[in-house]
Amino acid sequence: MPKIVNHEERKKQIAQATWRVILKSGMEGASVRNIAKEGGFSLGALRHYFSTQEELLVYAMNLVKDQARERINEILITDLPPKEKVLRLLLEIVPTNKQTLVEMEVWFAFTFHFRNKKGVYDPKHDGIYEGIKRIITFMDNEKLLKNGIDKDIEAEKLYAIIDGIALHAFLEKERLNKERIVQVLTSYLDSIFI
Amino acid sequence: MPKIVNHEERKKQIAQATWRVILKSGMEGASVRNIAKEGGFSLGALRHYFSTQEELLVYAMNLVKDQARERINEILITDLPPKEKVLRLLLEIVPTNKQTLVEMEVWFAFTFHFRNKKGVYDPKHDGIYEGIKRIITFMDNEKLLKNGIDKDIEAEKLYAIIDGIALHAFLEKERLNKERIVQVLTSYLDSIFI
Repeated sequence: MPKIVNHEERKKQIAQATWRVILKSGMEGASVRNIAKEGGFSLGALRHYFSTQEELLVYAMNLVKDQARERINEILITDLPPKEKVLRLLLEIVPTNKQTLVEMEVWFAFTFHFRNKKGVYDPKHDGIYEGIKRIITFMDNEKLLKNGIDKDIEAEKLYAIIDGIALHAFLEKERLNKERIVQVLTSYLDSIFI
Repeated sequence: MPKIVNHEERKKQIAQATWRVILKSGMEGASVRNIAKEGGFSLGALRHYFSTQEELLVYAMNLVKDQARERINEILITDLPPKEKVLRLLLEIVPTNKQTLVEMEVWFAFTFHFRNKKGVYDPKHDGIYEGIKRIITFMDNEKLLKNGIDKDIEAEKLYAIIDGIALHAFLEKERLNKERIVQVLTSYLDSIFI
């Protein structure tokens, strides 16, 4: 029987090899050659799927976003009470386990690499700020926001809390463990939700 | 008259040339050769003050901290009302002007460069978390904290807000301008202070 190659699966494997290289040696080590070596692919195979290094890097970064989005969508369709649902959603985008720590590491590496390169990949638009604004609107529609809450300012504040926690959990994973992250987020959510 | 060289002044000039190189081309461009060229120093002059590249980088990073600390000390000795003093202190450590934006850029570059190198420079201990804990204790001593505030959790939350704002102001300086930062911080401080 002829060997059947699942192209999407192969591209994912290449992206995963890219993450491992970034974890080991940062973006400066993420050459096509190093990525091929890490994943056990030939240079030719890599070039078959990605014609430039940048195309590969952008694909690898978008896969991080897609994974997070999938986990978030799974939570959205559950029957959890609104407050618990919001907490669970937020916990998917801060590093609380090995998987999300890797995503955070890759996200930071990409952000610094691409932040001054216009038109290639915009790390500012990872969807987190938009998602947080939607969460606040959702809680408002459910009549669960306290009186006098400025939705615009609270969205900016929660966005800062999320990325601040992400940065600190990434730098100090022992101190800022999942239990402590849950405490901080719960305390914040209690301050704006009924 | 013989030329009098102020050694501290000269070291500062070298550190400032280091920041400029980092701003232009990141840590990967911060070679002793590039720094000498940027500042108009000879390689020999640089080596006279710093025997290794790492020694120079750590000095340049510590100078960022010293500058921030000086500005903070100036605010601490003012007669401002406690709440206003706290807001002014916090505004010195998030990027609201060209000077603090440069500091943030250099701080992030150093953080990523040194974060896995033990014993050289610890970006986790930049003093911001300690400073925030002191601010909360100060407000508690002044009897200005609301009832039922968990000081430990609020310190962690404010620390996240500060570094989250720093990260976002650094990535999106147009959107997150000083006026908006003041609004977010004031809203947070109002939630814990009487």
